[in-house]
Amino acid sequence: MSPLTIVDPDTPFAVLDHNKLLHNIQRMQQHIERLGVTLRPHLKTAKSVDVASRLFNGATGPITVSTLAEAEAFAAAGYTDIVYAVGIAPHKLPRVLALCARGVDLTVLLDSREQAEAVAKASREAGKRIPALIEIDCDGHRGGVLADDPALIEIGRILDSASELRGVLTHAGESYFANTQQALAAAAENERIVAVTAANALRSRGLPCPVVSVGSTPTAYAAVDLTGVTEVRAGNYMFFDLFMAGVGVCDIDDLALSVVVTVIGHRPGKGWIITDGGWMATSSDRGTASQRIDQGYGMVTALDGVPYTDLIMSHANQEHGILTIRPNSSARLPVLPLGTRVRILPNHACATAAQYDQYHVIHLSPGLEDTGPATIDALWPRVNRW
Amino acid sequence: MSPLTIVDPDTPFAVLDHNKLLHNIQRMQQHIERLGVTLRPHLKTAKSVDVASRLFNGATGPITVSTLAEAEAFAAAGYTDIVYAVGIAPHKLPRVLALCARGVDLTVLLDSREQAEAVAKASREAGKRIPALIEIDCDGHRGGVLADDPALIEIGRILDSASELRGVLTHAGESYFANTQQALAAAAENERIVAVTAANALRSRGLPCPVVSVGSTPTAYAAVDLTGVTEVRAGNYMFFDLFMAGVGVCDIDDLALSVVVTVIGHRPGKGWIITDGGWMATSSDRGTASQRIDQGYGMVTALDGVPYTDLIMSHANQEHGILTIRPNSSARLPVLPLGTRVRILPNHACATAAQYDQYHVIHLSPGLEDTGPATIDALWPRVNRW
Repeated sequence: MSPLTIVDPDTPFAVLDHNKLLHNIQRMQQHIERLGVTLRPHLKTAKSVDVASRLFNGATGPITVSTLAEAEAFAAAGYTDIVYAVGIAPHKLPRVLALCARGVDLTVLLDSREQAEAVAKASREAGKRIPALIEIDCDGHRGGVLADDPALIEIGRILDSASELRGVLTHAGESYFANTQQALAAAAENERIVAVTAANALRSRGLPCPVVSVGSTPTAYAAVDLTGVTEVRAGNYMFFDLFMAGVGVCDIDDLALSVVVTVIGHRPGKGWIITDGGWMATSSDRGTASQRIDQGYGMVTALDGVPYTDLIMSHANQEHGILTIRPNSSARLPVLPLGTRVRILPNHACATAAQYDQYHVIHLSPGLEDTGPATIDALWPRVNRW
Repeated sequence: MSPLTIVDPDTPFAVLDHNKLLHNIQRMQQHIERLGVTLRPHLKTAKSVDVASRLFNGATGPITVSTLAEAEAFAAAGYTDIVYAVGIAPHKLPRVLALCARGVDLTVLLDSREQAEAVAKASREAGKRIPALIEIDCDGHRGGVLADDPALIEIGRILDSASELRGVLTHAGESYFANTQQALAAAAENERIVAVTAANALRSRGLPCPVVSVGSTPTAYAAVDLTGVTEVRAGNYMFFDLFMAGVGVCDIDDLALSVVVTVIGHRPGKGWIITDGGWMATSSDRGTASQRIDQGYGMVTALDGVPYTDLIMSHANQEHGILTIRPNSSARLPVLPLGTRVRILPNHACATAAQYDQYHVIHLSPGLEDTGPATIDALWPRVNRW
C-alpha cells in the first residue's frame, strides 16, 4: 500500500510541517544559547510529546505548561522539570502534589498572599515543600505583583517558611501589540529589568531567588541582553502564525501549522469560494483584525504551501469557510474546482491547533514541489483539555 | 461517598443545566408542532447522543448533523434518518455510502452540477441511489443556488437520473443579524417563500421534491406560517447563548450551557478579577461584539446561575479570563475571593461547547438555591472532530 499523502485524509485536518518545525526550534535554541540563558519551552501551543522530543535533541529538558493535563502527560513521558505557568487555584494542589510524589519537580505560580498561604498549608500537610515562583507584573497585561510592591516580600516570606521559594516569573504579554522593532526591544528590556528588580528585592531581604524567568515569543527574539535572567519561556515560536508574522518575528514562510480544507462550492457572482473548513477548523480567533494586515480567518495556500495571491478566508460559519480576494486587491480569484484541497495558515496557532486531537506531520522539502503531494509521515496526538 | 457537585471537578468544565435544556427542547417542539411541520433538530451544537435522546421522548427521530463524525455516532446510537447539512465534498462519499449500507437514510446536500455528477457517479458505482437535497440560497449568506437559477433544474435532473432527488434545503443565516421582531418574521417568511419557489420549480419540470427543508433558530421561532414547508431545522435552541439572547429569541435565564471557572487573582487597582478560564475555556468567539450589547467573552453568574450585576469576562488569554464591570456601568465589582467558582454564560454555545469533550449535567431547580451547590448527575460525552 502506498503511503498516505496530504490528499488522502478527510478534511479538515491539521498539518504540521516537520522541516519548518525543526527550523523554528533551532532558531530559538541558537538565539537563546547566544544570550547565555536556559530556554524553557512553553508547550501550551504544541501540547505534544512528539514536538517536545524535538526540543532537546531527543532528551528531556526544562519545560513550561499551561494546564495540569499537560504536566501529567509530559511527566508520563519523562519530563521532570516543569513550570505550570498559570496562577494556581488552591483546589488543584492535590494534582500538583501527586506529580511531586512521582518525582516531578513541578513549580507552581502565584501572585497573592492567599495563594502563598494555600501552597504553604498544602506543603506542610503533605510534608513536601512545593516549589513556587512569584508572578511579577511587568506591563499590566494580566496578573502579577509589581516589583516594588511590599506584597512581594510578604509572599516570599510565606513561601520560604513552608514551601520552596524558587524565584520570580514575568511575561511581557503586551509585547504582542508592539509594532516596531524598537518597541519590541524596549518590551524585552523592560521585562528583564522588572524581573531582575523583583529578584533583587527578594534577595535584599535575605530571601532566595535562584530563578528569574521571563518570556514571550516576541520578547525572546527581541532580547539582546539578558543579564540577571536565568531562563526564557516561549512557545508559539515552534509553529508561529499570522499574528506573529504581523508582529514581525517571523515570515509567512516560517509557519509550521496549517489546516487542509476542501473546496465544496463557488459563488462566482460574489467572488466566493466555499470550503468545508469553517471556524470549527480554524478557531474563531481573529487576532490579526487588530493588526496592520487583517488576514480574516487565515491566508490560503496551495497544498505545496505557496500562498495564492491575496486570497484569504474572509468569513466562517461552523463548517463553512468563505475564501475571497483581500479588499482593495486587484488579484484574480484563482480557479479552484470542486474537490480542490488548499491549506489555511492560521491567525493564532495556539487556538487553531486546539481544534484538533492530532497533527498530520509532513516533510515538504523546498524545491521538491513537483514530486507530488507531501507524504504524511506520522500522526502526533495532542494533550487537550485540563 | 456523597455525590459530586459543581464545586468538585477541577475547573474549567462545561455545565449543562438539564431543566433548561428540557424547557428549551419542549418550547421548540411545541412551537413547530403548532406550525404543523416536522422538526429535524440540528445536533451541531449539542453533538451529544444523550442530548439527542431528550429530543424525541427517548425514541429516535429525524436529525440534522454538521459532520460525518456526528452522522456515524448518531447512526451507532440508532438514528436512521439523518441529513448531513454541509455541501458534500466528493471524497467523503465512501463514508456516506458506508452509512447507507448500514441502513441509514443519510441525505447529502449540494448546490452544483459537479457535486451532483459526483453523487450520481458514486450512486451508480455502489448500486445505491444516494438521497440528496439541493441547497437553495435564500439570503446570500453562504452557498446554494438561487430559486430561479436554471442550474437548479439541471442539478435536479442529474440527481433524479442516478441518485435520489429528495428535495430542497435552505438556511436563513442572515437572520442572525436581524435586530427586530419584524425583521426576523420577514427573514422567516423569505426563507419559506424561496424554498417553496424552488420546490415548485423542480415539480413544474416533473422532478420529485418531497422535502422542503428550512431553518435556523431565529427563523424557526419567528415563523408564523410554514405552508409548503415539510420540515424545520434548528440546533442552537437547545442550549441558547448570549448571541441568541441578543437576537431576541431567548432570555438570559434560558441559557443551558455555561463554563465553571475559578478565581485565581485580583488586580483591584485595575478593577480586574482573574480566573483560570481563558479563551481555551470559552472559545475566542466574540459574536456579541457586533450586537447592541457587547458581552465580552461572556456574562458572569454565581454558581446558582444568578448573574452578577454588569460583570462580564472582558479579556481572555489562553488560560486566563479577566472579569470586569461593563463599561459605563456604576455597578461595584463583587467580592470574589481566591478560589471562588463562577459560571460564564457563552457568546456562542456551538463554539464554547466544542472546547470540551463532555458536559457535566446538573439539575438546578429554581427556588432551591439554598440547598447547596448543584449535584452533577451525569457526564455526557460530545462527538467532536470530523
